[in-house]
Amino acid sequence: MSAIKAVVLLSGGLDSATVLALARQRGRACYALSFDYGQRHRVELAAAARVAQQWGAIEHRTVSIGLGGFGGSALTDPSIGVPEHGTTGIPITYVPARNTVFLALALGWAEVLGAREIHIGVNAVDYSGYPDCRPEFIAAFAQMANLATKAGIEGESFQIVTPLMALSKAGIIRAGIAQGVDFAATVSCYQADAEGRACRVCDSCRLRRAGFAEAGVADPTRYQA
Amino acid sequence: MSAIKAVVLLSGGLDSATVLALARQRGRACYALSFDYGQRHRVELAAAARVAQQWGAIEHRTVSIGLGGFGGSALTDPSIGVPEHGTTGIPITYVPARNTVFLALALGWAEVLGAREIHIGVNAVDYSGYPDCRPEFIAAFAQMANLATKAGIEGESFQIVTPLMALSKAGIIRAGIAQGVDFAATVSCYQADAEGRACRVCDSCRLRRAGFAEAGVADPTRYQA
Repeated sequence: MSAIKAVVLLSGGLDSATVLALARQRGRACYALSFDYGQRHRVELAAAARVAQQWGAIEHRTVSIGLGGFGGSALTDPSIGVPEHGTTGIPITYVPARNTVFLALALGWAEVLGAREIHIGVNAVDYSGYPDCRPEFIAAFAQMANLATKAGIEGESFQIVTPLMALSKAGIIRAGIAQGVDFAATVSCYQADAEGRACRVCDSCRLRRAGFAEAGVADPTRYQA
Repeated sequence: MSAIKAVVLLSGGLDSATVLALARQRGRACYALSFDYGQRHRVELAAAARVAQQWGAIEHRTVSIGLGGFGGSALTDPSIGVPEHGTTGIPITYVPARNTVFLALALGWAEVLGAREIHIGVNAVDYSGYPDCRPEFIAAFAQMANLATKAGIEGESFQIVTPLMALSKAGIIRAGIAQGVDFAATVSCYQADAEGRACRVCDSCRLRRAGFAEAGVADPTRYQA
C-alpha cells in the first residue's frame, strides 16, 4: 500500500517544522509548500528548504504570490514597523486573509497530487491573536474546500490537519524535540537578518523564547548580537 | 456619503465585464482584480485592463500567482490540449481550487481597502460544470471569510455578490447590453491568439456564441480566420 499523501504548509518556522516531523512520523508522503508573499523575513524560505530536506519531503515548492502589493501589514509593508512590545487585539503583523490564501493554494496542489490531507501549524493557544488560526476558521475552510473541488463533489473529503491547535508553545517545542526536530534550522523571527539570526524582541521571537523557557529546553535560536 | 467599496474580480471575459458594469450601475466604488496564474489565454489580461478603464474602476491590480506550476489543467499546462468538443462531467479546463484562490486574494485586498463586498461573475446555469461556480460553494466561502478576517470577527460581514448566478448566457449578454458593455473588448476564449481573437471551438467560445445567438444579438467577437 502506498503512503497517504499530505500537503504540508512549511513556513520555515518552529511550528511548521514540527508539523512536518509529526506528519512524517505518521508515515505520510509529504509535499511541502512555502510561499514568497513579499514577507520581510524572506530568509525563512531558506529555512523551509533546509527543513523540507531534513525531513524527507518528496517535493518542496515555493509559490510566489503578490500579496505584498495589498499592504496593510507590518510583515509585507516596509513602511510599517514590526512591534517590539506586546499589543492587545489583533496586531499589525496580521496579513489579511493569509491563511485563507495559503490553504486555498494548498488545496489546489492537493487536488492535482491526489492528496486529501493538508497539514498546517496553526495554534489557538500561544498565538498572535490572528483570526485565521482558530479552529472555527479551519472547520469552515474544510467545509468550503469540499464544495470547491472536483474531488470534494466526487465524495472524497479533504481534511485540514492541525496537530498543534491545542498545544502551548512549550508543548509544541516538546513535541518537536521528541521527534528530533532541529530547531536551530528554523527561523520564526519577523525581522530576521540575512543570515536568519533573530531579533529577540518581535512578537514571534518573544513567544518562541518564552516557549523554550517554559519547556525547560535550552534555546538554540541564533540571535543578532 | 462616500460610495460603498467593492472588489470586482475581472478576468477580461464577457461575464466579469458585465459584473463590473452592474456594480458601477449600483454606484459601487470598484477595485478591479485580475490574476496572472499562468493561463494560456493571458491575452485576457489586456482585455481586463481595457474593461477596467472603460468602467471607471478606481484601481486595477493584476496579481501574479504560481498556480500554473501545479499543473493538472488544460488552462495552465501547455502539454494538455484544450477540448474542442463538448464533454460530460468536469472538464480538463477546470483549474483546481481556482475560484477559492481568487476569492481568498480578493478577500485580503478587500480587508485592506475596507471593502465589504466582493463581486464575482460565477454562474450556475450556462457554465462549464466547475464545482467552484455553484451557490453552495459561494455561501460556504462567505461563511469562512467571516471567520478568517479581522473585519469578520469585529462584526462586519463580507458579502460575495454574484449577480450572474441565476442567469443564462443569453441573459448575461442582455444584462450587459442594457448597461452598454462593449463585448468586443472582452476575451473569453481559452486559446485566443496574441491579438485576442477567439478560436470559435473551445467550451468557452461555444457557450459565448450560443449566448449571442439565443439573445438575438449580433456576435461582436473577433474570431481567428
